[in-house]
Amino acid sequence: MAQKPSIPKGTRDFNPEQVAKRNYIFNTIRSTFETFGFQSIETPSFENSSTLMGKYGEEGDRLIFKILNSGDYLSKANSEAYETKDSNKLTSSISEKALRYDLTVPFARYVVQHQNEIEFPFKRYQIQPVWRADRPQKGRFREFYQCDADVVGSKSLWQEVEFIQLYDTVFNALKLNGVTIKINNRKILSGIAEVIGASDKLIDFTVALDKLDKIGEEKVKEEMHSKGISEEGISKLQPLFTLSGTFESQIDSLKAILSTSEEGQKGIKELAFINDAISELGLRTAALQLDVTLARGLNYYTGAIFEVSAPSEVNIGSIGGGGRYDDLTGIFGMKDVSGVGISFGLDRIYLVLEELNLFPETVNKNVEVLFINFGDKEALFSLKAIKTLRKAGVNAELYPDAAKMKKQMTHANRRRIPFVVLVGDQEITSNTYTLKDMVSGDQCKLSIDDLISKVK
Amino acid sequence: MAQKPSIPKGTRDFNPEQVAKRNYIFNTIRSTFETFGFQSIETPSFENSSTLMGKYGEEGDRLIFKILNSGDYLSKANSEAYETKDSNKLTSSISEKALRYDLTVPFARYVVQHQNEIEFPFKRYQIQPVWRADRPQKGRFREFYQCDADVVGSKSLWQEVEFIQLYDTVFNALKLNGVTIKINNRKILSGIAEVIGASDKLIDFTVALDKLDKIGEEKVKEEMHSKGISEEGISKLQPLFTLSGTFESQIDSLKAILSTSEEGQKGIKELAFINDAISELGLRTAALQLDVTLARGLNYYTGAIFEVSAPSEVNIGSIGGGGRYDDLTGIFGMKDVSGVGISFGLDRIYLVLEELNLFPETVNKNVEVLFINFGDKEALFSLKAIKTLRKAGVNAELYPDAAKMKKQMTHANRRRIPFVVLVGDQEITSNTYTLKDMVSGDQCKLSIDDLISKVK
Repeated sequence: MAQKPSIPKGTRDFNPEQVAKRNYIFNTIRSTFETFGFQSIETPSFENSSTLMGKYGEEGDRLIFKILNSGDYLSKANSEAYETKDSNKLTSSISEKALRYDLTVPFARYVVQHQNEIEFPFKRYQIQPVWRADRPQKGRFREFYQCDADVVGSKSLWQEVEFIQLYDTVFNALKLNGVTIKINNRKILSGIAEVIGASDKLIDFTVALDKLDKIGEEKVKEEMHSKGISEEGISKLQPLFTLSGTFESQIDSLKAILSTSEEGQKGIKELAFINDAISELGLRTAALQLDVTLARGLNYYTGAIFEVSAPSEVNIGSIGGGGRYDDLTGIFGMKDVSGVGISFGLDRIYLVLEELNLFPETVNKNVEVLFINFGDKEALFSLKAIKTLRKAGVNAELYPDAAKMKKQMTHANRRRIPFVVLVGDQEITSNTYTLKDMVSGDQCKLSIDDLISKVK
Repeated sequence: MAQKPSIPKGTRDFNPEQVAKRNYIFNTIRSTFETFGFQSIETPSFENSSTLMGKYGEEGDRLIFKILNSGDYLSKANSEAYETKDSNKLTSSISEKALRYDLTVPFARYVVQHQNEIEFPFKRYQIQPVWRADRPQKGRFREFYQCDADVVGSKSLWQEVEFIQLYDTVFNALKLNGVTIKINNRKILSGIAEVIGASDKLIDFTVALDKLDKIGEEKVKEEMHSKGISEEGISKLQPLFTLSGTFESQIDSLKAILSTSEEGQKGIKELAFINDAISELGLRTAALQLDVTLARGLNYYTGAIFEVSAPSEVNIGSIGGGGRYDDLTGIFGMKDVSGVGISFGLDRIYLVLEELNLFPETVNKNVEVLFINFGDKEALFSLKAIKTLRKAGVNAELYPDAAKMKKQMTHANRRRIPFVVLVGDQEITSNTYTLKDMVSGDQCKLSIDDLISKVK
């Protein structure tokens, strides 16, 4: 029967310290979402396959975990696919359900399904795990949490202003200084494509531009060229590659570059509105930066595009992102619902806080007092005190067995419990408790009230 | 493209109010677990199939959700099973992973896998969803949460004492008065079986006895008879059927009935120890009751068996249960690890609190103040105040669009937001805010500081 136990690749066990640290991040995000007026919903871990399939492209479909039907699932198997042993084709006949791939599609499904109960504009947040059959690698897992906030049912740009403030508030609360909130606008990208005569190659063009940071100007130009964008068009892009300076001066340059594009001008106006509001309202510790190369998930976003970078001393990708989409629920037959949303990258934020040593020391809600067990009489006397301590909000416990004193003290040390209490005959008679500070080694005899105030 | 969206049967969407109510229960349980010295771990949603299969009996195996392998999974399909279209036999060759069926087996796997990092006795809690391909019915779902606390690595009966206090503390904190914590001991059941000469029919015997509440004495006797328990044996059971009175008097009766069974006497001693300690320590609102018919999951438990009943005015099954098991980790090759644990039934507790109207009114962390949007100038002025309010911990937001006043007020009403703030030219000039109480209809003009203290 004995097996060497392990877990599937790309998944993780979390020990108490890791859970506590993760919850510290979750709780900070959650409470900020709530102060900003977002409310939490939860959707099932698996959805009908028809809800998910075809929503993430071919690659996405492949990465969705499918759940095998229960019972004699082969009795309904597609016989043609079965005969030809065509895995891909067989799947839909033996699997009706699939694990959630992200929180966006289930949210769209939720909005459409519950549209009559929802009061719009609807501000929801959702913090739940998602699953992807991706090849696991450093920092990429097959099960991970997403933390999303979205507003649907309003086209107001004030939402974009709010989301920038929300990012700033969360990272400030996490004491993570120096993050950069990068912003762009799909209309700017469309405008540029229009100006260089590549409107029909918008995706190719933006995918190439998005790589400027990583591969540099020359390679980007080569890639554009290889995708059939004309030399003349590429040369018109030159000012973009050297775009720098303040948000305002970049806006001025863009105005010149995009003077002939109505769409581009619209994008500029939106960006300027957002930047003006943020300048008025101020950010705590984050910086807002215009980045015309930012394109993430372009086929999805229709207005603002956000991405958050960790402080430059940490070498890690983005720790958040989002944007505006004008037709989230169209895939489920509900038209004209504009939305805008952002997401936090929990695992990367965790790595950043770890690397910069930013987790508070008190993050792990450990036991604060361990009562040493000297036998049943002492244990009972101790449990009465423990009951009082717990009522006062102190995490306290009794060592379960009357083991050797040394073993019990070692246990307290290994668990880094700051205080132990010793109760013997003398203490029972005098109704007192001997408290030992495990760091200093100091000992003192205290009444129950003094014990509580001492350890609190 | 349009589809009528729905979710798989047996699963649920939770709206903000439901999430808030569920979190109220989770948070109460969680914080009590922590005061009692338990620490949280989390395990992956899916495990290797080999970890789960064969651990829950044949019926359990059937109810485990299997995940289809990715890619060309048919290329590794068991060819014999494939040719004969044997679903059952094929599964293990096309599915390597399965969704967690409970939290106990993953916990056992965790303990064995991480035994060198764990400091024993190990007190862990775990609050995570589990999945079962059960036929959905009222109150039974295919995805639901379990809330477990276990101690492994100690045989001390003080743990049982602690768990009874823990149940009492949680239900008292939830203001759910009148719950009954029923306790039994496997050794008592073994002792009875021994005394009536049915030691080899322990499971049949206890399964029948467990039904006493539901089907009555006569039917229980019939079932025992049909399972081959002798008339003479059954007649020896008579005192059990009429066992009543206090814990102490029941203990006395059992002492007589089980006088010839060493095992039974051991069980009695354990129960008496626990009851004596609880009598000394006292319970807040729960009652501790000895119930010799209690057997739940007998092939699993080796000592104490717990079950918690909701107050009698609510017609619902158990809202919690647990017990001691002497060989949790044996299935993974780690012997002699004794454990004891309890579980809370989230969904049923939810129904009970709902029925008895016990959820606090403030459970839903709603927006407290909505600022009416009269246009961009007013919106910007409002957002400055909103920033200050949020910093003070008030959930506040701006209506995103400068829609008609009536529409915005209706929105506030529908969302049951208690206050709205009106900001026009006059307010901007005088740096004040007009606060409207949506319940009383009262309006007053306030400075930002007065606004904060008013809505807090």
